[in-house]
Amino acid sequence: MKNKCIISSPATVANLVCGFDILGLCLSEPADKMEIKLLNEKKIIVHSADGYPLPEDPALNTAGAPLLEMINDLNASIGFEVLIHKNIKPGSGAGSSAASAAGAVVGANHLLGNIFDKKQLIQYAMFGEKVASGVKHADNVAPCIYGGVTLIRSISPLDIIPLPAPDLYTTLVHPQIEIRTADARAVLRQQIDLKNAIKQWGNIAGLVAGIIQNDVELIGRSLEDYIIEPVRSKLIPGFDELKKKCLDAGALGGGISGSGPSIFMLSKDEATARKVEQEMKNIYLNLGIDFRTYVSKINKEGARIIDSQ
Amino acid sequence: MKNKCIISSPATVANLVCGFDILGLCLSEPADKMEIKLLNEKKIIVHSADGYPLPEDPALNTAGAPLLEMINDLNASIGFEVLIHKNIKPGSGAGSSAASAAGAVVGANHLLGNIFDKKQLIQYAMFGEKVASGVKHADNVAPCIYGGVTLIRSISPLDIIPLPAPDLYTTLVHPQIEIRTADARAVLRQQIDLKNAIKQWGNIAGLVAGIIQNDVELIGRSLEDYIIEPVRSKLIPGFDELKKKCLDAGALGGGISGSGPSIFMLSKDEATARKVEQEMKNIYLNLGIDFRTYVSKINKEGARIIDSQ
Repeated sequence: MKNKCIISSPATVANLVCGFDILGLCLSEPADKMEIKLLNEKKIIVHSADGYPLPEDPALNTAGAPLLEMINDLNASIGFEVLIHKNIKPGSGAGSSAASAAGAVVGANHLLGNIFDKKQLIQYAMFGEKVASGVKHADNVAPCIYGGVTLIRSISPLDIIPLPAPDLYTTLVHPQIEIRTADARAVLRQQIDLKNAIKQWGNIAGLVAGIIQNDVELIGRSLEDYIIEPVRSKLIPGFDELKKKCLDAGALGGGISGSGPSIFMLSKDEATARKVEQEMKNIYLNLGIDFRTYVSKINKEGARIIDSQ
Repeated sequence: MKNKCIISSPATVANLVCGFDILGLCLSEPADKMEIKLLNEKKIIVHSADGYPLPEDPALNTAGAPLLEMINDLNASIGFEVLIHKNIKPGSGAGSSAASAAGAVVGANHLLGNIFDKKQLIQYAMFGEKVASGVKHADNVAPCIYGGVTLIRSISPLDIIPLPAPDLYTTLVHPQIEIRTADARAVLRQQIDLKNAIKQWGNIAGLVAGIIQNDVELIGRSLEDYIIEPVRSKLIPGFDELKKKCLDAGALGGGISGSGPSIFMLSKDEATARKVEQEMKNIYLNLGIDFRTYVSKINKEGARIIDSQ
């Protein structure tokens, strides 16, 4: 039996522009590195390798809470010690908490001999999201665990549909400003126009059809958001200009990653994704806002074991 | 050159439960029969074979208005005479006006040597819908012309995506009560809860994924409507009981056809579709409301030429 493994747990883009709370996409970069050790007592310990102060109580930690739920379901004296090398900045809108939660359960499951299926892992990982944002959502943990693009048709009962991921490139920019998930939720109107909702679900249907049928033009046409982006984009400096410049540079489309402030764009090929990256850099250099950019293919694998002993 | 043809133009189910204004499905039964003759003058004449009184001005007729638009775009002394055998009752919610409009343009295009593509035909046929309901919608004319299931991602600009139709059976019941499309629209709330909209677009995404991937269980799970059905179903006597009985009889799911009062159900096989039909019959026999029922496969072909000379 293995008693230690190292996991790469990647960033994810929730919402995918028009699919608020139901769609998510897995990136290749950035990704957290997590080391997980099996313990022979019912105990969860989580450390940060980067000196982040973590709550002592594992139930208050995004990696710890899912593991606590998991060991409570096991009829054995088993626990885990987790060391997190955080490469996905908390508060980036790129699924940082999901990467910790998903990576922890994927690694733990590996050490347990893969006794849980992906849907069960998602259910555990959602406890980490609850710690992070107060809401047990799955639009980051599902793509982080399945890879590719996932549809969360329903959260209760949980109904996850992995979609075949198209061969597209993603460009992500993380402007280093703070938008709290709670604030990003608070600006949303709780009542929306039926007229806009109809346009939105036309785009969601088009996006899902485009993804499954690998119709990149349809994907591009469908990446429009009438409900969330008009409100949330105001919280992100440079958003409108950046989006316009990226589309002019050849991006198929894109928008706010999760609740922001990161912005992602999809492109047909790496050369375009790099041009898009340059436009993003120009915008935030001009605005004098620190940023990080990442270009990568859609990650079809999700969180994965990179070493095990 | 042919100068006369006969068309079978079928009924259609708009909305498909959760896809209000964006999805439509083509039935095999009932279908109108239409005879179309080429005239050598710029003139449209429409008759009813069943003695329905039709407006003398073809611009006020659902079959006439699309043809007027079509001949106005042609630089030639060409017109059409149309005789309609109406089998789809007006006001049934099963695309009666769309069948007239779509059948007329499909037949006329055939006599013209198929100079228009399907998207152009849909654009002409939408003029018929405007006559019928005041709104140029495409969720009946698109499936009537393409067959199968169609997604109307956007109406302006028009973006129609034909989806591969699953091999399912439909049962349609038309209780002979009157619901005017305008009334069915008037009961709708123009503001909806974001919470319900999210559930709705989860189902729309699930339905589209289920249809394309031929996952009938996913289709069934996704056929739920949080926005329109709770309001409109109150206009249809027996709706709730009928739906429950049909699901108990094995239907995958279903709901109001278009703006009602017809109700449709999807089933995996003909035997189930027949059982579902029997449940529908029982309900309306008990309620003492006249009705018609139709069992047919999803029609993958749409309006078609059955004779030409």
